[in-house]
Amino acid sequence: MSTLPPRWSELIDRPVNDIDTPALVIDLDAMKRNLVRMAEFAKKHNILWRPHAKMHKSASLAKMQIKAGAAGVCVQKTAEAEAMVAGGVYNVYISNEVIAPGKLARVAALAKKTAAHGGQLAIAVDSTEGLIRLAQAMNEARVRKGGGTVIDVFVEIDVGQGRCGVEPGSAAVTLVLELRKHPALRFAGLQAYHGKAQHLRSARERRKAIAKAADAVLLTRQLIEAQGVAVNLVTGAGTGCLVLEAASGVYGELQAGSFLFMDADYAQNERDPAQPQFEHAMFVKTQVISTRSDHAVCDAGHKSHAIDSGMPLVHALSADSALEYFNGGDEHGILRPAAGCSRLPGLGRMLWLIPGHCDPTVNLHDVMIGVSGGLHSGVVQRIIKVDARGALT
Amino acid sequence: MSTLPPRWSELIDRPVNDIDTPALVIDLDAMKRNLVRMAEFAKKHNILWRPHAKMHKSASLAKMQIKAGAAGVCVQKTAEAEAMVAGGVYNVYISNEVIAPGKLARVAALAKKTAAHGGQLAIAVDSTEGLIRLAQAMNEARVRKGGGTVIDVFVEIDVGQGRCGVEPGSAAVTLVLELRKHPALRFAGLQAYHGKAQHLRSARERRKAIAKAADAVLLTRQLIEAQGVAVNLVTGAGTGCLVLEAASGVYGELQAGSFLFMDADYAQNERDPAQPQFEHAMFVKTQVISTRSDHAVCDAGHKSHAIDSGMPLVHALSADSALEYFNGGDEHGILRPAAGCSRLPGLGRMLWLIPGHCDPTVNLHDVMIGVSGGLHSGVVQRIIKVDARGALT
Repeated sequence: MSTLPPRWSELIDRPVNDIDTPALVIDLDAMKRNLVRMAEFAKKHNILWRPHAKMHKSASLAKMQIKAGAAGVCVQKTAEAEAMVAGGVYNVYISNEVIAPGKLARVAALAKKTAAHGGQLAIAVDSTEGLIRLAQAMNEARVRKGGGTVIDVFVEIDVGQGRCGVEPGSAAVTLVLELRKHPALRFAGLQAYHGKAQHLRSARERRKAIAKAADAVLLTRQLIEAQGVAVNLVTGAGTGCLVLEAASGVYGELQAGSFLFMDADYAQNERDPAQPQFEHAMFVKTQVISTRSDHAVCDAGHKSHAIDSGMPLVHALSADSALEYFNGGDEHGILRPAAGCSRLPGLGRMLWLIPGHCDPTVNLHDVMIGVSGGLHSGVVQRIIKVDARGALT
Repeated sequence: MSTLPPRWSELIDRPVNDIDTPALVIDLDAMKRNLVRMAEFAKKHNILWRPHAKMHKSASLAKMQIKAGAAGVCVQKTAEAEAMVAGGVYNVYISNEVIAPGKLARVAALAKKTAAHGGQLAIAVDSTEGLIRLAQAMNEARVRKGGGTVIDVFVEIDVGQGRCGVEPGSAAVTLVLELRKHPALRFAGLQAYHGKAQHLRSARERRKAIAKAADAVLLTRQLIEAQGVAVNLVTGAGTGCLVLEAASGVYGELQAGSFLFMDADYAQNERDPAQPQFEHAMFVKTQVISTRSDHAVCDAGHKSHAIDSGMPLVHALSADSALEYFNGGDEHGILRPAAGCSRLPGLGRMLWLIPGHCDPTVNLHDVMIGVSGGLHSGVVQRIIKVDARGALT
């Protein structure tokens, strides 16, 4: 998994200036500071953290996070879990529903493999049919390969996202009772992720949304515990609200992933005073390839960075670089002077973009080029393979 | 380049139903009909066609197009050109500006390689600096490796796109005169692509935009020819306007690429009566993984298909499948009944999405799964590798 084609490894120890464009570049120093901030935050609040590896898709970064104190990683896809396990990460939670029997057979195989390495696989479920199919796959794996393995199962409730999950309350109880009929499934707790709340701009709106989510969790937990079943863990939270989930008293684990790189979208949230000050650590390096009197064109379009959460910001490296990025299509970006600045970058000028959204941006690249010593005068220290790039199934 | 991992090739001859989700699936029969329609259109209008391989990024599809009569292919990136040449495609036009000396050295190497195979490399230029750097790279390659190669150069003018290209008129003449000072550069004609016009919804607006573009081309051509230099070819056009460029009398070559797969965005254009009736041939197969009373959730989000040109359409395979797709994030799609239809698909149901935009969708996938016999009961006939996936530099 970790063998890189020669042209990437040749970059090691070379100056930032030698990186061809467009390229995904990680400021390793800023990334490490973000990692420390997160680990300290979790420690201070006595809460588990299990960062979402759907963001960086890298087994080596997952291992770095676990070494810093993370309980494991989350993923959204079976194929992402496979990439993590292949890279030596054995505490993996598929925080999503899996329904296809072929995929569930792969999940069962992964449960066995992680257990053999002293780890644990977990998965989310939001339907009786999903539970039955998962139990069947686990049993078939047991019959076929011998020996029993147990998979941790989180029952997903919809706390405001409006996507997967059952309604909070009695529907979750029904699932927990069904779950307990299957010896290969162990009830691990509740999955309660409010994705939409993470991106609400005002701190007040986010507080309101997470308070409502916490109420829904509490109600559901009480109903389940009234049946004599303990709810040992509630897992959820993202980079936008993690201070709120941590303070809620109901969440026991934070799934935030983007904090490691910080995208332009999350940086636009009104900051909660208790929020750790995460820095931008992920950039797309780009070059000006065409200039006109009123705009310049760079070589990074939306095949280089995702635009689902808006256009990238242009990182201001110097006083004359206050530029705004406009959509120029798949392979181009249009740059115009931002207010109060009239200097356009010249032909060949290198620029740094801060993508709107980390996760789908990383997924466009085979590798992340890790730089130490800053974007101005740093050197390439490591090449981080995007192990689960394109891992869709 | 063409060796596929075993799990893909194992799909050959298997029924459509066996394709795991999400997956990029090509209806090969529809694709071939689109190909024939384009070839017949070009023949009827006595115009060259050089489809844009930035769309399919596949050397084997490029060769199929050339076999059907295409003059070669366009690409936007040096790395895409390298993928084409490595796959045996030797008539390649980089319809974009290249400025970095390292990339220009690769361009010069490709010029030599294509010539050695009886082909021809071409490139676009829109600045004096660009011309000088290109000539220098060609000369350095000549000195270093012996023997001279000539590269075809198109001078790009901006006919309304507002991106790369010089203003029509005298600025282009200046570039042509500079170009002719360099023996390794051969003036091939004008690059005049109006990308924005392709997506104007009304046929009247598109006619107006392309008429204006044709006027700009004519003016520029007259000024160049007044200097005693022939403008042998004007190249441009996309799937949205190709009937207009073909009828303009000034364009000699059509660069349209999307016609082969037809995305949801182009299908929303008011159709010009002369436009060949291109069919949707590219789909994302997806599965329902969660259901609620008011919506269903499928396993394809914007890591499976690009959303820069809007959400995908849900392909109606039966009367009860009139569904609308809403953004569910990176890995999910939210499905709601479209007007006049109240049936939601059940858990496990397979659906077919028609992506908003072909090009960046293909770029998210390692392979395209080619199916013959229809989406209902067809079989997998071939696996088409996306050779230039992620070829950004």
